[in-house]
Amino acid sequence: MSDQVFNFNAGPAVLPAEVMRQAQEDFVSYHGCGYGIIEESHRAPQFDEIIQAAEANLRKLMGISDDYEVLFLQGGASLQFAMIPMNIAVPGRSIGFCDTGEWSHKAMKEARILGNEIDMVYDGSATSFTRIGDASSWKVSQGDAYVHMCCNNTIYGTEYQNYPETGDVPLVCDMSSDIMSRVFDMNRFALVFAGAQKNIGPSGVTLVVIRRDLAERCPDTVPTMLKFSTHIKAKSLFNTPCTFGIYIIRLVTDWMLAQGGVPAIQKRNEAKAARLYAAIDGSGFFRGTCDKADRSKMNVCFRIGDGDEALEKKFVAEAKAAGLVGLKGHRAVGGLRASIYNAMPEEGVEALISFMEDFAKSN
Amino acid sequence: MSDQVFNFNAGPAVLPAEVMRQAQEDFVSYHGCGYGIIEESHRAPQFDEIIQAAEANLRKLMGISDDYEVLFLQGGASLQFAMIPMNIAVPGRSIGFCDTGEWSHKAMKEARILGNEIDMVYDGSATSFTRIGDASSWKVSQGDAYVHMCCNNTIYGTEYQNYPETGDVPLVCDMSSDIMSRVFDMNRFALVFAGAQKNIGPSGVTLVVIRRDLAERCPDTVPTMLKFSTHIKAKSLFNTPCTFGIYIIRLVTDWMLAQGGVPAIQKRNEAKAARLYAAIDGSGFFRGTCDKADRSKMNVCFRIGDGDEALEKKFVAEAKAAGLVGLKGHRAVGGLRASIYNAMPEEGVEALISFMEDFAKSN
Repeated sequence: MSDQVFNFNAGPAVLPAEVMRQAQEDFVSYHGCGYGIIEESHRAPQFDEIIQAAEANLRKLMGISDDYEVLFLQGGASLQFAMIPMNIAVPGRSIGFCDTGEWSHKAMKEARILGNEIDMVYDGSATSFTRIGDASSWKVSQGDAYVHMCCNNTIYGTEYQNYPETGDVPLVCDMSSDIMSRVFDMNRFALVFAGAQKNIGPSGVTLVVIRRDLAERCPDTVPTMLKFSTHIKAKSLFNTPCTFGIYIIRLVTDWMLAQGGVPAIQKRNEAKAARLYAAIDGSGFFRGTCDKADRSKMNVCFRIGDGDEALEKKFVAEAKAAGLVGLKGHRAVGGLRASIYNAMPEEGVEALISFMEDFAKSN
Repeated sequence: MSDQVFNFNAGPAVLPAEVMRQAQEDFVSYHGCGYGIIEESHRAPQFDEIIQAAEANLRKLMGISDDYEVLFLQGGASLQFAMIPMNIAVPGRSIGFCDTGEWSHKAMKEARILGNEIDMVYDGSATSFTRIGDASSWKVSQGDAYVHMCCNNTIYGTEYQNYPETGDVPLVCDMSSDIMSRVFDMNRFALVFAGAQKNIGPSGVTLVVIRRDLAERCPDTVPTMLKFSTHIKAKSLFNTPCTFGIYIIRLVTDWMLAQGGVPAIQKRNEAKAARLYAAIDGSGFFRGTCDKADRSKMNVCFRIGDGDEALEKKFVAEAKAAGLVGLKGHRAVGGLRASIYNAMPEEGVEALISFMEDFAKSN
């Protein structure tokens, strides 16, 4: 076994090795300035260059037009579950939701606390969220204030392969776990958000991409920090943001561009996921947990047999000893999970497959 | 001139050199585990040890009893300006505020947006906030739901030397810029909060210390992420927190304990501030901007003469060239400001004084 460790955590998660080395090298003295970027003022030219570069990189990578604002906020996707209805719900109109499990439930709960009716566009509960349906077949009520979807569920390992057509109804998407893992058309969405800690950078930053006109809906009774318009006006510097997190995002997006951008990364992600699912399906020992059509290329969820908990525990422990960490499934569902985000190298997936083969043979 | 750079930024600000070196050393492989702590799951035992140690350190440093919860939140003090009234305002009762400038205004604005009446306990506007009065003389209405104060104003360089007696009215304090810079009695406060980026760690984490009973006031109409009770119940892990920021806080608080805790740090802070103010007062060239009785030991604000903007600009530029960065005053007031938080070594203050003497001689 080599000394290299591969980190399959679902988030916070692996960052590109090049980014980690660069951040380490510059940690104590950023570009030789004599102190670290973590110690720099968010109003200093040195940080301004970073936040502008991060935004420019994200615009390039996702093809974000000038109709949209790019915001670096705090509080994670969980705060967005409240902020979004606070800003863009419309009194007397329902909000469309698709239920693909935990993250949908959390988002619906906040919409309801704020007094909104839910219009269920798709309900995956009957199949325990192992199936999520084809989003392109959704019939969306044109009376909805907006439709909220989570396109990749980290817990169940499901991912929409298509996005819905919502007509004039703004489409809001929680892309926390698959943003920039594949090419998508930003113009189909009114608002996209993502906790950074999977495919963008470290925890502590929430990326929000919002079509500018949508931010104007917000009533005056919403606190200043919870209004998108506040952060749009202040270019994410209304108050002190998570500066070190934004610095790492800049490095990660530099790295992504150097890799050939999202198309090249998507190709590698597809190859990694295909290899891993083939190993699971061909093993006669491991078993994927969700419908093949709905499988996530980011979070590969699987079990041993029909869910042998003792053997799964052994698997996690022995994998860790072999340098493969973070393979335990989410506590809500148990089992095993390998998160193979953009920054997971092919060698990591190959090392995991090789370990799985050995484990299956000797157990 | 030595090659050493001293960073006088008001926040994000200088971190202890030992902390910076330690974090750099461990950046790519935390304690030799093969990957960085910034890449670790917030649910992993390795991170659990960190957040628990950070809390235990803070409890020790501030003498926080079991009646209080210690929370690591996001969104900065600015989000607290809204969260606090959302959680602990009482319908039909006013909120006491003291007006010491910008941060008070921002906090009052959010209380008003949420429909609360303000009971002005002290108004510093008549003296343009260069005087803040003696808080121990405040007469607090026992009908107030709570009293909110900001004990150190980073912009005007003022700091309360005493805290008020508020009887049964809960006292809430924004300690963002002087927390743990001096000994205080936590039991006099119902809630203390601080953006981490001055005396605690990097930006991206907000420390909230709250008396447990106070969190029970919150109505059910408040979104889950904005309720203190959510974070109390989940021990700050309801969703993914800013893990790297909490890791740095752990290192900073380890460092503080190794320095002898708050009493030893306070003694050094008093000596640093006394040296710098004496240099200003004795110069016949520089001039402190606020009442001597109200001077902050953290943010030393001064001008050249009666405010010679051209010469101040030259001062900032030449100081930077000499390795003394971040000396420009806040854009709201102009002038000069040296923030000398816990992590600013005595040598930094001495280097600044020596530069000031040279500058005064040759200008």
